[in-house]
Amino acid sequence: MSLLVVGSLALDTIETPFGKAERAVGGSATYISLSASYFIQPVRLVGVVGSDFPKEEIEFLKEKEIDLEGLQVKEDEKTFFWHGKYDFDLNNRESLATELNVFANFDPIIPDSFKKSTFLCLGNINPELQLKVLKQMDNPRLVIGDTMNFWIEGKYDALIEVLKHIDILIINDSEAREISQQANLFKAAKKIQEMGPKTLIIKKGEHGALLFKEEELFIAPAYPLESIYDPTGAGDSFAGGFIGYLAKTEDLSYENMKRAVIYGSTIASFTVESFSIDRIRDLSALEIKDRFNEFKRLSDFSSI
Amino acid sequence: MSLLVVGSLALDTIETPFGKAERAVGGSATYISLSASYFIQPVRLVGVVGSDFPKEEIEFLKEKEIDLEGLQVKEDEKTFFWHGKYDFDLNNRESLATELNVFANFDPIIPDSFKKSTFLCLGNINPELQLKVLKQMDNPRLVIGDTMNFWIEGKYDALIEVLKHIDILIINDSEAREISQQANLFKAAKKIQEMGPKTLIIKKGEHGALLFKEEELFIAPAYPLESIYDPTGAGDSFAGGFIGYLAKTEDLSYENMKRAVIYGSTIASFTVESFSIDRIRDLSALEIKDRFNEFKRLSDFSSI
Repeated sequence: MSLLVVGSLALDTIETPFGKAERAVGGSATYISLSASYFIQPVRLVGVVGSDFPKEEIEFLKEKEIDLEGLQVKEDEKTFFWHGKYDFDLNNRESLATELNVFANFDPIIPDSFKKSTFLCLGNINPELQLKVLKQMDNPRLVIGDTMNFWIEGKYDALIEVLKHIDILIINDSEAREISQQANLFKAAKKIQEMGPKTLIIKKGEHGALLFKEEELFIAPAYPLESIYDPTGAGDSFAGGFIGYLAKTEDLSYENMKRAVIYGSTIASFTVESFSIDRIRDLSALEIKDRFNEFKRLSDFSSI
Repeated sequence: MSLLVVGSLALDTIETPFGKAERAVGGSATYISLSASYFIQPVRLVGVVGSDFPKEEIEFLKEKEIDLEGLQVKEDEKTFFWHGKYDFDLNNRESLATELNVFANFDPIIPDSFKKSTFLCLGNINPELQLKVLKQMDNPRLVIGDTMNFWIEGKYDALIEVLKHIDILIINDSEAREISQQANLFKAAKKIQEMGPKTLIIKKGEHGALLFKEEELFIAPAYPLESIYDPTGAGDSFAGGFIGYLAKTEDLSYENMKRAVIYGSTIASFTVESFSIDRIRDLSALEIKDRFNEFKRLSDFSSI
């Protein structure tokens, strides 16, 4: 079993009511691959950075057994940069700056040694690039994809084409409503399932997540955090934990996907406890398991 | 074990994207007592209506074993009237008209035969009236209360006084944030618990509910409804099902309160399937039990 993650690597400047991080490591591929590395190693990564991406962070990713053969480093160019500011209750954020830099002309080239990867995770990037990736792959067993409102509005046709190739789509509630043009999430899910992905996960932030697998539904809680320092990367950490656990177990049953949803939620709950990737740089197996069990206890129905 | 419900009886004109109901039966005491009647009978009710309140609806409540000894019927006066309109996704509503009518001078008089009721449910009314009710009671074992933003903003001091006498407060997420002045719901809960109620239920609509009992927390899912026709009364139906089940079982443990939360959610999920009280006029024990079990299945963790 092998897992390939394609997405962005970024430098993020983030402001929350609790502080500020400047040019800290971020990006969908970073969060996804790091989160997945707690379940399966190596994780293969395809992405692009400029020469300003810290060398020690590249070394750090290597130490986490993230295979960077597919990482393009563009000398004399700058890494994708995002500056965001979250409001008081962390539910809304404002983009103060978005500089595509190396991402403007990114051509995702999949190394030959990655083409037979059995699990493919398409992080949130331009769906035209997601299609380019899909064309290079040699029949992956499972394709997981993410997107965002920006692409739903700007690249709808390419996105619709991507959806036909995706087995599991992971999006948030507003994206589900926008793709399907349905206000009700359960109607939205049915419509999206008809567009391609037979399995759909709708993330609802502080309200947990919904897993739709064909006719089955699982309602997962969110972890009760009193202090969220930085929501950036929570969705990608969820996706990484989810696909990492599936890749580790090689079991795509409904019951196992429920477990994977909780492992995804577990990693995401750590991510938001600090800025950038700081909290998930070095998680122990025990703290992951403890929090997973805490999720069980909080919504435990079995004794009822 | 005996249950007394004090609150409003109303005539509601309701507009949703799916239709309109004119001068249909509503009000907190109506929904609470009817919902509770599926678990315990009789349910004692104290409230007020005008002569325009349909006689057949009064007969209907009596048939459901709701004891109307405490119902004041004001001849030549009009029942409390509310006209509301829900938007496209039913998450927001606009009050087009609110006529207090008989409610303007309502003096809640508790009949002697009701004063020793062991369970008291204070529906959403002016907290000054809730205090008047509390003063007339003879040491109830359990007091459950509800309120709304209108009173938090307009009668804060009286509300703070009511909270000291409440064992279980049932409110929604925006009310919890407003009472506590905390954006984070888990911090909000702690603060509200310090204000009086040792048990707190925060309703989150389509996202389920949170039960805080001293240090314990239970995260309950919402029922996945594809079609919600009228959200009016959902919160009161939740409260009625919850307290009805507690009164029936006389068990105030954390484990039993979890069950009560799911029974409350169950009745509320029926209420929103039709206008006014139509869907909960005649529920069968089997359909209640079936839906309760469905709740279990949807968030079942036990096999994980």
